Amino acid sequence: MQTSPLLEALMEALRCLPGVGPKSAQRMVFHLLQRDRGGGMRLAQSLTRAMSEIGQCADCRTFTEQDICTICANPRRAQSRQICVVESPADIHAIEQTGQYAGRYFVLMGHLSPLDGIGPEDIGLGRLQERLAVENIAEVILATNPTVEGEATANYIAEMCAHHNVLASRIAHGVPMGGELEMVDGTTLSHSLAGRQPIKF
Amino acid sequence: MQTSPLLEALMEALRCLPGVGPKSAQRMVFHLLQRDRGGGMRLAQSLTRAMSEIGQCADCRTFTEQDICTICANPRRAQSRQICVVESPADIHAIEQTGQYAGRYFVLMGHLSPLDGIGPEDIGLGRLQERLAVENIAEVILATNPTVEGEATANYIAEMCAHHNVLASRIAHGVPMGGELEMVDGTTLSHSLAGRQPIKF
Repeated sequence: MQTSPLLEALMEALRCLPGVGPKSAQRMVFHLLQRDRGGGMRLAQSLTRAMSEIGQCADCRTFTEQDICTICANPRRAQSRQICVVESPADIHAIEQTGQYAGRYFVLMGHLSPLDGIGPEDIGLGRLQERLAVENIAEVILATNPTVEGEATANYIAEMCAHHNVLASRIAHGVPMGGELEMVDGTTLSHSLAGRQPIKF
Repeated sequence: MQTSPLLEALMEALRCLPGVGPKSAQRMVFHLLQRDRGGGMRLAQSLTRAMSEIGQCADCRTFTEQDICTICANPRRAQSRQICVVESPADIHAIEQTGQYAGRYFVLMGHLSPLDGIGPEDIGLGRLQERLAVENIAEVILATNPTVEGEATANYIAEMCAHHNVLASRIAHGVPMGGELEMVDGTTLSHSLAGRQPIKF
């Protein structure tokens, strides 16, 4: 775009967003300039505030602009004495949407990955250990991703909980709802067989 | 995202970009917060400057932060005495990349569309008429889109050129390069037959 260095700079800057290539950056720029300059200005303000003000909750490590996030600060959340350990703040969002969980969270912001040099301290397990020692916690629900790294991380934290005599549980692995059995992969199916539950009346 | 109103506001603001839904907005926010806060800040600055400083060239109506864009201001561009009429600034980019055209442009920022209330003045044809009257123009190349509205707009401008005794030409319609003939639609094929050219040795 020879006609405008600013326009070119904006197209380049938009490429920092995941999934935005040269063509979609161009489309975004022209859309904003032609139809939604107000939206573009609001986006710029939101970005500036979010990038500079959002930090991490001192208790659960999720993203928040306060010292303690609203979930950790809520006294009713503490009543259940449960902590759900997840890999990312997006997982909190997913679990909150089920409406099934009323306890607090702990966000690892990743998972153990010795090959990449990511050890227990990098995913905040020091802080979790402190909470296990200090707070009166009844159960730690391990909701890390069902991947090799997620499983390893869950096992590591379960051992930590055992040291503090805190019950650790892992979310169930099995057949997802609504699909067809023949489409489910073998590993999932064997997990769902091993984790079968008696039907209670 | 109950934990952070700022984060929620940013996710909502990102939705003003075309092709960004709730899931990709969430992905973008977490990517920026976790991995690229610097990129996010640069994007915010670029956006602010672009949205407030970019206007339209007084001659060709393309986006630029100057009064006259670099293409219109270039005296060598005026030598060919050609004006290429396109629907959007992105089309200038596409034509510039061919390296085949060294004249100036005129950007309509749309096309005639009486049903939507878009008439000649809305696409800047008053300014084009002025230029046809004042400047010494040899040819107007009509490069509007090969759609019904694009064709109608091209025809309208061609009549305007005829009034000013300026040659108007339309870019060729035909079979695109590199495809297979059997895959080409009937309308394109009949255009390519009607527009056939003698082979010169």
